Amino acid sequence: MSPTRAIKRIFLAPHPRSLTEIFHPADLEHLRTLGELVIHEQADLDEDVFQKLVTPADIIIGQFDLPQSRLERIPQLKAIFNVEGNFLPNVDYQYCFRRGIRVLTISPVFANPVAELALGLAIDLGRGITRSDQDFRDGVEKYGLAANREVQSLFHQPVGFLGFGDLARALLPLLIPFRCRVRVYDPWLPLELIAEAGCEACSLDDVLRESRVIFVLASATAENRAFVGASQFAQMQPGTVFVLVSRAAVVDFDAMIQAAQSGHIRVATDVFPDEPLPAHHAARRTRDILLSAHKAGALEHALKRIGSIAVADVEMISRGLPPVMCKVAHPETVERFRGKPVAKS
Amino acid sequence: MSPTRAIKRIFLAPHPRSLTEIFHPADLEHLRTLGELVIHEQADLDEDVFQKLVTPADIIIGQFDLPQSRLERIPQLKAIFNVEGNFLPNVDYQYCFRRGIRVLTISPVFANPVAELALGLAIDLGRGITRSDQDFRDGVEKYGLAANREVQSLFHQPVGFLGFGDLARALLPLLIPFRCRVRVYDPWLPLELIAEAGCEACSLDDVLRESRVIFVLASATAENRAFVGASQFAQMQPGTVFVLVSRAAVVDFDAMIQAAQSGHIRVATDVFPDEPLPAHHAARRTRDILLSAHKAGALEHALKRIGSIAVADVEMISRGLPPVMCKVAHPETVERFRGKPVAKS
Amino acid sequence: MSPTRAIKRIFLAPHPRSLTEIFHPADLEHLRTLGELVIHEQADLDEDVFQKLVTPADIIIGQFDLPQSRLERIPQLKAIFNVEGNFLPNVDYQYCFRRGIRVLTISPVFANPVAELALGLAIDLGRGITRSDQDFRDGVEKYGLAANREVQSLFHQPVGFLGFGDLARALLPLLIPFRCRVRVYDPWLPLELIAEAGCEACSLDDVLRESRVIFVLASATAENRAFVGASQFAQMQPGTVFVLVSRAAVVDFDAMIQAAQSGHIRVATDVFPDEPLPAHHAARRTRDILLSAHKAGALEHALKRIGSIAVADVEMISRGLPPVMCKVAHPETVERFRGKPVAKS
Amino acid sequence: MSPTRAIKRIFLAPHPRSLTEIFHPADLEHLRTLGELVIHEQADLDEDVFQKLVTPADIIIGQFDLPQSRLERIPQLKAIFNVEGNFLPNVDYQYCFRRGIRVLTISPVFANPVAELALGLAIDLGRGITRSDQDFRDGVEKYGLAANREVQSLFHQPVGFLGFGDLARALLPLLIPFRCRVRVYDPWLPLELIAEAGCEACSLDDVLRESRVIFVLASATAENRAFVGASQFAQMQPGTVFVLVSRAAVVDFDAMIQAAQSGHIRVATDVFPDEPLPAHHAARRTRDILLSAHKAGALEHALKRIGSIAVADVEMISRGLPPVMCKVAHPETVERFRGKPVAKS
Repeated sequence: MSPTRAIKRIFLAPHPRSLTEIFHPADLEHLRTLGELVIHEQADLDEDVFQKLVTPADIIIGQFDLPQSRLERIPQLKAIFNVEGNFLPNVDYQYCFRRGIRVLTISPVFANPVAELALGLAIDLGRGITRSDQDFRDGVEKYGLAANREVQSLFHQPVGFLGFGDLARALLPLLIPFRCRVRVYDPWLPLELIAEAGCEACSLDDVLRESRVIFVLASATAENRAFVGASQFAQMQPGTVFVLVSRAAVVDFDAMIQAAQSGHIRVATDVFPDEPLPAHHAARRTRDILLSAHKAGALEHALKRIGSIAVADVEMISRGLPPVMCKVAHPETVERFRGKPVAKS
Repeated sequence: MSPTRAIKRIFLAPHPRSLTEIFHPADLEHLRTLGELVIHEQADLDEDVFQKLVTPADIIIGQFDLPQSRLERIPQLKAIFNVEGNFLPNVDYQYCFRRGIRVLTISPVFANPVAELALGLAIDLGRGITRSDQDFRDGVEKYGLAANREVQSLFHQPVGFLGFGDLARALLPLLIPFRCRVRVYDPWLPLELIAEAGCEACSLDDVLRESRVIFVLASATAENRAFVGASQFAQMQPGTVFVLVSRAAVVDFDAMIQAAQSGHIRVATDVFPDEPLPAHHAARRTRDILLSAHKAGALEHALKRIGSIAVADVEMISRGLPPVMCKVAHPETVERFRGKPVAKS
Repeated sequence: MSPTRAIKRIFLAPHPRSLTEIFHPADLEHLRTLGELVIHEQADLDEDVFQKLVTPADIIIGQFDLPQSRLERIPQLKAIFNVEGNFLPNVDYQYCFRRGIRVLTISPVFANPVAELALGLAIDLGRGITRSDQDFRDGVEKYGLAANREVQSLFHQPVGFLGFGDLARALLPLLIPFRCRVRVYDPWLPLELIAEAGCEACSLDDVLRESRVIFVLASATAENRAFVGASQFAQMQPGTVFVLVSRAAVVDFDAMIQAAQSGHIRVATDVFPDEPLPAHHAARRTRDILLSAHKAGALEHALKRIGSIAVADVEMISRGLPPVMCKVAHPETVERFRGKPVAKS
Repeated sequence: MSPTRAIKRIFLAPHPRSLTEIFHPADLEHLRTLGELVIHEQADLDEDVFQKLVTPADIIIGQFDLPQSRLERIPQLKAIFNVEGNFLPNVDYQYCFRRGIRVLTISPVFANPVAELALGLAIDLGRGITRSDQDFRDGVEKYGLAANREVQSLFHQPVGFLGFGDLARALLPLLIPFRCRVRVYDPWLPLELIAEAGCEACSLDDVLRESRVIFVLASATAENRAFVGASQFAQMQPGTVFVLVSRAAVVDFDAMIQAAQSGHIRVATDVFPDEPLPAHHAARRTRDILLSAHKAGALEHALKRIGSIAVADVEMISRGLPPVMCKVAHPETVERFRGKPVAKS
């Protein structure tokens, strides 16, 4: 906790998010007590701004370009906080690792909201909630047992997770009261870790074949593009509830739509290869597809927590301690992620 | 466990349910080992059948009329198992209590499925799942934060329970991971019991005013008809998520529809004063109402458990032990329930 | 809730406990609001007292003799609350059942404290806590790994429950974080109930042979006297942790002491065939026996809850509702219990 | 997952532990499949051994000296696994951070066993388990309520944690069923993190004054030497249960003994400033001190997991992925720890 650790300047550029979207006023006040705060709300950040405002910073909160040529001009830099939730190729990560600059993302704020929606989608599909409401509006509803043909409860159901990162670990406690056996496919993790969490590490094939409910929770990486494709859908049990909430890129979207259209499985998705989904896309007319408009994470309350956890970690750093709230970039994996930037609406 | 306790005859009349609906073959086989099993699948049960088949029974599983005049003719009767899930006025309960005849209902099989649907409805309304899907089909969906105006997560939300019976106790564990503070109004229970369950006993007014999500979980009784009416809806916070899964009779249904139509609250209901809901009922056209066609409990899997828990308790009785799986009728309350018979479709 | 249900007189005879031991002043005040309260603190209760004070009562809280001849003189009696925690042969139970008189016991207050001690004894024996402390006092302690020969952790250990009543259901949640597989032997319960609780119903032999930690949680009954005897101890795995917290009568105490003396198993007991344990009893000198002086339930705080739950249920009865806090006597089993009276110290 | 990442040589020097102590044969076999395995079991590791065996290694598992001068000679080194559980000053950590060499410790294997013992000690002290057993051996035991004077149950008790690292996070789930309110003092962590875990971040004074049970779970650092001293003990409530399981250095041991001797608090400790504790140390004769011989973590089963988690992480590294089972050293804190080496018995 030597005084030399103290932070002098914090440069905050919230774009593509807005300042009020991601900061409670109290968190912003807290941040001001930790160092001189310079806020840059515009989208573009030219050389002049960079030279004057960014080069004196110890801490950067923002998503603008930071190639080695720029990073070399900020020798005192301690940490870069990404405000989107994805590690994008805007930073020379390896340079940061060599220089001991922490690179962090605020993605943990999204884990609980996404997990909640994933559970809601799974119950909705399994129990036929949206379908029943639609039937009422069409005046064709049936009641009771007659309304429950093909319905499945989550209780005691075999569940499969594709991916076992933050999202999976937020979803897992929500499933515990349903006493599901959870099989996990995650090639980036050892069996031991999955077993310690009370789940079962399995091959992709085993997860696909043995589960009645499958949650896609994997980040997009250089290696897992469309890893759930037509042959994977074919392996699933008829009537499987398939819930996609992480990234559209990890599934073959067309194959998924087709698997639902054919009546083989039931699908809920919160993500799409292109947003908006084309106006005449088949998914809009397919009965066993539940469409959610990229709503899983971006709750007002969750966005406000971006500021809270970033400030908490800036304080840790200002006190000479490691950050603990945000997720740190790892040299082994950071460049393998293929997240999509937040749309600049 | 004296031999005199042994069961001689079990009379099983599944109507208005069907035999295969409520019995796994294995449970039926098990039942046959416990006494001579006589099955009567027809709806009506005339004097002749009663005299020949029912009067020799120790155990009755069924829902037909059992006034004192009939019960007096079955002096060896040990227990009556109701197969619907409601205590209806078909039995002279006080006679049964005086004679030590156990009256039981298989209602516990419905607790978990109903709790699951209640949670699904609450997440659906709070997060706007069905609404988002509808927007896609109408081609008017927005994405991300723009899609999440007025959305609320269940995490850390103040929750209210109206009624704290089996259903509430099945729902409670599903809410624990969401870390909600749960206020309970149940005039039939002491504060101590509610506190032991980790909840807070409150007045009806407090529950209405302090909760963001309200679950109606109370059975219909002689005393609670329409106890949630216009003035109760008026007390709720704007945007409250109101989930009705127990009995339509406990709310003023029209007032509830109006509270949703006015935009004051969001409503999901699985029960209706009349089923089917009239074809032109306003609820079918109101955006902030989620309609579920009495689907909460009547899952195939749950119905099959009726046989399982009834047989388990017949075995207990055959061994001179108290039944433990089904719910027993209490002399103080059994005649105050106002359940609706299962529709004879 | 008709006024005719209202309670007129409550007769309270706390002996063999004392009034201040089992009642918070606030609970006593609450009780006075429910009916005319007559308190009789003496041990004996002669005919004169009975005639004057007891015969007008609707509610009796106490443990004195209530044969049919006395009960017939209290025709308005609604409920008898036992204050010890055992159903003793002081009441003509069958008469009560015929007349609809509720007989209740306050035993649920003991479940949590006993479960806590049972867990503490199991960890103590398994990890060698008392033994280590004794070694320090004898100046012979070893450290670290050398101190941990023959030690066993509770994590992931196969556990056996003998008996699955209130006590077992209080202990079960304390074990959940240790992720033990729990096998249960309870001949009074169906497999379904045990499975619903997340445990496995087994034969006595299977529980004995497969468990590393065995908890004896069964009440003493007419049928289970010394059901864990020499041949049962012989079946246990070497080094089994055996924790007896319910009733000494259900084990062959001498066989248990011998099983520990021989080094075959480790034993902790909170109950004894005779209290005090004879001064020169071998158990006092045996290393692998942990002795606890009938301390499991009788905590001041637990005793005070006797009054709380009794008053809560008197209020329920006064309002025409069934009692829900105390445990009700069942006609099938109440006379089969063989509890020991509380010592009148 | 480029082939250049593949591991060539793994150098394994288990001293001061032994190879069979920390490796299941299967884990060792697994390790051999990940690279050429060189095992060095001797305590000393001279220049000759270093040059021949260590300099070609990609992975080092061991605790020997690795100053910059040696590290410079292993340019391909990817990771160093500490086998003791402490970060000691045997490594030039800053050099490792600059070069991207991962430094890891296997300390997570100890969290569960230590948490279990901490819970056992707390129940033992609170409920008087060892004391009761001692009374039996001295022939002075009392029974029942008389044995429970000054006893306290853990249920609903206010609990304090000093330190909120791995150990605290392993203890927390064990306390959940006891429904304790947990206050936490940890100056290295933000309030947000503690709140997310369901606890309350407090000042040291508040934890000391408000808790009935205090667990010392903090690692020893350069800054927290004896931070619980005489004035801190004085602030505690009379009868506080004080459980020390992390490091003796963080408390003023003499002040702690005195606080117990005076009857002010009850103490359990698994750690000592010097081991063995001097033969005539007052702690050996003080009634309200429970002594445990550094037994908390070093269970055979836990030690064997050292190999398991190290191998799992070596595999991650061999696949170009970040390690996830062991704990990584942070540049900010690694040199501030003041662990004690494992005694070379």
